[in-house]
Amino acid sequence: MLGRVNHIAIAVPDLVAATATYRDTLGARVSQAQALPEHGVTVVFVELANTKVELLEPLGDASPIAAFLAKNPAGGMHHVCYEVEDILAARDRLKGAGARVLGDGEPKTGAHGKPVLFLHPKDFNGTLVELEQV
Amino acid sequence: MLGRVNHIAIAVPDLVAATATYRDTLGARVSQAQALPEHGVTVVFVELANTKVELLEPLGDASPIAAFLAKNPAGGMHHVCYEVEDILAARDRLKGAGARVLGDGEPKTGAHGKPVLFLHPKDFNGTLVELEQV
Repeated sequence: MLGRVNHIAIAVPDLVAATATYRDTLGARVSQAQALPEHGVTVVFVELANTKVELLEPLGDASPIAAFLAKNPAGGMHHVCYEVEDILAARDRLKGAGARVLGDGEPKTGAHGKPVLFLHPKDFNGTLVELEQV
Repeated sequence: MLGRVNHIAIAVPDLVAATATYRDTLGARVSQAQALPEHGVTVVFVELANTKVELLEPLGDASPIAAFLAKNPAGGMHHVCYEVEDILAARDRLKGAGARVLGDGEPKTGAHGKPVLFLHPKDFNGTLVELEQV
C-alpha cells in the first residue's frame, strides 16, 4: 500500500533561520518560502535527490503545528508523508485494521493540492503519518 | 553536500508489534529483524520505493535510544540520515559553520558498515541528523 516517502516534515520556529541552516550549513537545495494560509503554515522545500524535507513554520492563529512547537520550542520532526495510489482504499484498510484516521475520516486537499489523510500517532509508534494520493 | 535521504529512523518499544503495523496495517515490505549489539539496537528495515524507514528497538544495557524511549514511551521519530560523498569534508564544513558534531568528531562505523557522524539536534531545529558516507 505504501509507495514513496513523499516528504519528511520538520516544524521550525524560525523559517528563515532553518532555511539558511539547510542551504548554507548542510549544502542542500531549498525552495522559496510559500505561505499556505489555508493550511496554517509557511513552507520551504529542501530538495534531496530522492525525496524532500518540508520545513514548516506556523502561519496565522490556528496553525496545526502551533501545539507541537509549544511543546518543542526548538522544532522537531513532525510527520512522515507516504504516497498511496488510492486514498479511500487505504483509509478503509486502515480503519478495518483498527487504526484511527484523524478528523472525520474524509480526505482533505493537502498542501500539494492532492487528497491527504493523517493517521493517529498513537497507532503508529508515536509517529504522525500522512498519506497522500498521487 | 546532502545527497539522498538514506533512512528515517523511528524508535519503537516493541519491534515485533511495530513491524506488524508497517507490514500488515500499512502494507509495506519489511525485512527480518537484525540484532546489532555493537550499536545497541535491533533493526527492521521498512523498504519504500525511494528510501527506507528503520524501526529501532533498544538492545542491551547501553542502547543509544534508551533515553529517547524513556522520554517517549510509545516511540517516535528519532533521526534522519542523509548520504554524503565525503564525510570528512562534510564534518569540516559543518564545524566551520559552527555546528556541533556529536562525540569526538571522528566518523564511526555505522549500522550499515559505513562511516557515519551524528549532528547535534540543537543546531538543526530539534532534529538529530546522521550523515553517512556512501
